[in-house]
Amino acid sequence: MSVLREVTHIDNVRLGDDRASVVILDQTQLPNRTVYVTLRTAEALYQAIFTLQVRGAPAIGICAAYGLAALARQSTAGSRAEFDRVLKAQSDYLVSSRPTAVNLSWAARRMCALLDAHPDWPVDRMQDALEQEARAIHQEDIDMCRAISEHGLSLLREGDGILTHCNAGPLATSRYGTALGPILLGTERGMRFRVFADETRPLLQGARLTAYELQKAGVDVTLICDNMASIVMKNGWINACFVGCDRVAANGDTANKIGTSGVAILAKYYGIPFYVLGPTSTIDGNCPTGADIRIEERDPEEIKTKFYAEPMALPEVTCYNPAFDVTDHSLITAIITEKGICRPPYSETLPTFFRERK
Amino acid sequence: MSVLREVTHIDNVRLGDDRASVVILDQTQLPNRTVYVTLRTAEALYQAIFTLQVRGAPAIGICAAYGLAALARQSTAGSRAEFDRVLKAQSDYLVSSRPTAVNLSWAARRMCALLDAHPDWPVDRMQDALEQEARAIHQEDIDMCRAISEHGLSLLREGDGILTHCNAGPLATSRYGTALGPILLGTERGMRFRVFADETRPLLQGARLTAYELQKAGVDVTLICDNMASIVMKNGWINACFVGCDRVAANGDTANKIGTSGVAILAKYYGIPFYVLGPTSTIDGNCPTGADIRIEERDPEEIKTKFYAEPMALPEVTCYNPAFDVTDHSLITAIITEKGICRPPYSETLPTFFRERK
Repeated sequence: MSVLREVTHIDNVRLGDDRASVVILDQTQLPNRTVYVTLRTAEALYQAIFTLQVRGAPAIGICAAYGLAALARQSTAGSRAEFDRVLKAQSDYLVSSRPTAVNLSWAARRMCALLDAHPDWPVDRMQDALEQEARAIHQEDIDMCRAISEHGLSLLREGDGILTHCNAGPLATSRYGTALGPILLGTERGMRFRVFADETRPLLQGARLTAYELQKAGVDVTLICDNMASIVMKNGWINACFVGCDRVAANGDTANKIGTSGVAILAKYYGIPFYVLGPTSTIDGNCPTGADIRIEERDPEEIKTKFYAEPMALPEVTCYNPAFDVTDHSLITAIITEKGICRPPYSETLPTFFRERK
Repeated sequence: MSVLREVTHIDNVRLGDDRASVVILDQTQLPNRTVYVTLRTAEALYQAIFTLQVRGAPAIGICAAYGLAALARQSTAGSRAEFDRVLKAQSDYLVSSRPTAVNLSWAARRMCALLDAHPDWPVDRMQDALEQEARAIHQEDIDMCRAISEHGLSLLREGDGILTHCNAGPLATSRYGTALGPILLGTERGMRFRVFADETRPLLQGARLTAYELQKAGVDVTLICDNMASIVMKNGWINACFVGCDRVAANGDTANKIGTSGVAILAKYYGIPFYVLGPTSTIDGNCPTGADIRIEERDPEEIKTKFYAEPMALPEVTCYNPAFDVTDHSLITAIITEKGICRPPYSETLPTFFRERK
């Protein structure tokens, strides 16, 4: 129980004690080293998000919110107008670090909206309000993850086999996580599950983070390569697939880590339910379908040389390295949010789950 | 053309000049180093096959045949009876190195059958006959690969996008290969294709070998992680999937590198033809369905630590590491053999393709 609590209460993103910096657990160093990094500048925040030192759609939203609060605290602006102009430029800059996840731009927009809502407040009052807003975003994420975990757990039975892709646990979110939340909450209540974690190439978040979190939490976890999802389903070991999400379109099409759509197609073929778990802030009502979601493409070296003792392909070999893909709504059994379980037809059911945007 | 010929005429497995050893190109060192290894003992042959220094169902069959010829040449047996007994024990030993591919046991059985067919020949005559049989197995594979390439090429059009998994090119076979054969033969004739090569975890044969071979041969190849097969199909970039095979059951169920069944399910979902290419020696008429094929499980360290600069998962994390999976016959558009293109229902059509077993 205390072992599990170490995992579900890990301090992955927080405001520094000086309230002018952000402290993150460097996820790129896991599972071999536990290193906390202090971020003091917009450039450092951008790099931390871009290089995935902090990652997971909710976590980068929280990091951006704390980051803007920290940058605001450092402001030497001579006027509110200058204060606002600089902070909004820093917000745009942070948002450009990763284009696919909606939480990043959502959190940044919410921080900037506070500026617009109180144009007459002095800078010091605004600084305090921005810090409170960032803390509220974090606390809301904790509450949402808890609620998502409860709703998701209602879909599981004792002894179930669960396949997950990438990482949507405590490191990617707050406390219990989204896709891993029901598993950790159920484990806390004495239930047993058998989890299969896709390693999730190219950056191996499943091996480095999901298997790490579940192993530390005392959950029965088996690591597989991504291309083994079909055989474990065929072996009859999987009762449900649980994945997180980076952006959900209005029709239910869901962008998540590259490979998610393949898992969904396999699940459909083998007759296994496929569940997407995420806060309603991930639902983008302004995005009609998955075709409207921009998919981030990343450095080919992530495929060819990163992590490896020596190159795994000739230097001149072309690589295609999309960071996400879109899972068609027709492949998704249900979308689990903090407000409840949303089932097809999503075009009709999702709007009732849209969060009021502040 | 000469560049391509370097690839299609690579000397991956041959009998040593002393006719008492086997020389292989060490595939575990590619793409970074080109190293030839001389194998002189049964133990060295076993290790070379087990550790995948030589791999690819046809290539390990040829290696075993040359290996038995080389071991026979070294024999110090005082009688034909002892000669036969030792060689058959060595044959059983080699066959146990990898259980899934049928070519290995097929080639070994064919060598041993020669012993039984000529019990009255003296040892020296038998040694020569075994060498001739091994050379015949090799030459037949060259002819088969050429014929498979011709039949497979009839399914392709100029400019086609082709997805392949693992490696079934010259390194895995003889000359043109099986799954890569039509691409290399078409390229030789001036056709252009765009090939997407799955990297094929955990041992990365797609990155290390397929991308290497196609790049060297001047073919337009793009390397992707296994979990990107879905997005390249969705992007409309794939007109056909070409894969090799390690064992084909009588009903058409096909064992091939782990992940193949997933590619087939994705292809079915996206409406893309999925072709299996291999010699008729890969069809196991004694194996009714895929459920009767034993799937080799390999060392978890292949997933967790091999290739990596440092471990990618906690040491205590459990891994599942099957080397192959079975693709259901219902997912296979056609099986291309040296005798022609076999289409469903396979239970009726495959028997007409069965090779006469010597």
